[in-house]
Amino acid sequence: MCQLLGMNCNVPTDICFSFQGFAARGGKTDYHKDGWGIAFFEAKGCRIFLDNQPSSSSFVADLVRKYPIRSTHVIAHVRKASAGPVAIENCHPFQRELWGRLWVFAHNGDVAIPEKKRSGFYHPIGDTDSERAFCLILNRLRKTFPGGDPGPDHLFPILKSITNEIATKGVFNYLLSNGNYFFAHCSTNLCYIIRQAPFAAAHLIDEDVAIDFKELTTSQDRVAIIATSPLTDNETWTDIHPGELFVFKEGGARLL
Amino acid sequence: MCQLLGMNCNVPTDICFSFQGFAARGGKTDYHKDGWGIAFFEAKGCRIFLDNQPSSSSFVADLVRKYPIRSTHVIAHVRKASAGPVAIENCHPFQRELWGRLWVFAHNGDVAIPEKKRSGFYHPIGDTDSERAFCLILNRLRKTFPGGDPGPDHLFPILKSITNEIATKGVFNYLLSNGNYFFAHCSTNLCYIIRQAPFAAAHLIDEDVAIDFKELTTSQDRVAIIATSPLTDNETWTDIHPGELFVFKEGGARLL
Repeated sequence: MCQLLGMNCNVPTDICFSFQGFAARGGKTDYHKDGWGIAFFEAKGCRIFLDNQPSSSSFVADLVRKYPIRSTHVIAHVRKASAGPVAIENCHPFQRELWGRLWVFAHNGDVAIPEKKRSGFYHPIGDTDSERAFCLILNRLRKTFPGGDPGPDHLFPILKSITNEIATKGVFNYLLSNGNYFFAHCSTNLCYIIRQAPFAAAHLIDEDVAIDFKELTTSQDRVAIIATSPLTDNETWTDIHPGELFVFKEGGARLL
Repeated sequence: MCQLLGMNCNVPTDICFSFQGFAARGGKTDYHKDGWGIAFFEAKGCRIFLDNQPSSSSFVADLVRKYPIRSTHVIAHVRKASAGPVAIENCHPFQRELWGRLWVFAHNGDVAIPEKKRSGFYHPIGDTDSERAFCLILNRLRKTFPGGDPGPDHLFPILKSITNEIATKGVFNYLLSNGNYFFAHCSTNLCYIIRQAPFAAAHLIDEDVAIDFKELTTSQDRVAIIATSPLTDNETWTDIHPGELFVFKEGGARLL
């Protein structure tokens, strides 16, 4: 299996603290050592760092731990290979362009999606069921709304319907964003915390590292962190329940 | 304008030496300081590092200079902004999935391609004429060969025809690869060198750095480096002439 980490906030924020704890799960405090990746949206632009090395010891992960890239939409993943060998093309997050925006997806779980013959617009590059599920979602969105992004009222119900359909085929915890929307779906394990004023100190579970957010924030800041399991041991995280699809916006959570 | 750097070889090779000289052109020895990017194919997988900082001082470029990622198909770009502001979404190389492979493209020049209404499969995310040209190429390939990669005999003439068409609209030096094919087109400035046994020493133009390839290679290795202008001052680079489209394979060059 794998683990997920996401961030959504109302002002561009770096994820160095959370990523430090999360990256330890890739080979140090947990066994998800078969590659990792992280996507940072900066307005419409997006940069994704991928590596097939364990995130706990990866040279590239070291850069991400230390170099504060400020973003409002972040998706990260550490991989424990199930379908597909350890290779860059099987590292999450995956990405495709739809309606002139980049869409980024990471998945935890296994879903039984058959390798279909070439059909639809998007085709998997690697070997994972995760990338097949991502292509399935985007193919459906594209087919349903050929004219472009139809807006939340039309988009969200269709995404929920595709998600429910795929979720019947296995375990389908995922994070999905295009830099504007940010979705989190839970099949088995996913939780979140929203940090806002009054800010306090937080201490990681996976590393003996603490941070005092009071010193780094303004009273208007709001940051949602979404993860497979809590990253800190002195804060209260909220479970997302099986079958729930959330949309996060400017650090706020809304159940769809 | 911008500058291009490409590498194609028969065994996975790192590009640290060439990139060290090339990255200096982003703000130190030349004025292309409005962002940069580099794509490394590793089999079907590809990872792209992008930054809107000057490559000569970028923290991420420092990683790429020092961390040897071995690849057979590499495309890099340093940007001098003309169309579109300094932003991640305007940094080359651009990427899209076509036929289950990732395609990567970087461009030097300006081409007058109007912002069309939403049509075709691929849409630009950023503001550059370069990304519009890339989408135009992939839209045409996809439309011409809906069943998948038709193989070199069918693909190459169509690519040449689209390229010639776009080249009439301005300056269109580009590098294009999907990890299998590697194309280089010259409108004004592009040259290459093929390094193979007997290997010798090379000295960069932009940095006082030399390397002796004899110590790092085997007699079977063959590496083509393609660049806007020569990167070394003690080797003979071959000009690609205006209007020529080359395909590189396993470090060898072939004019189409």
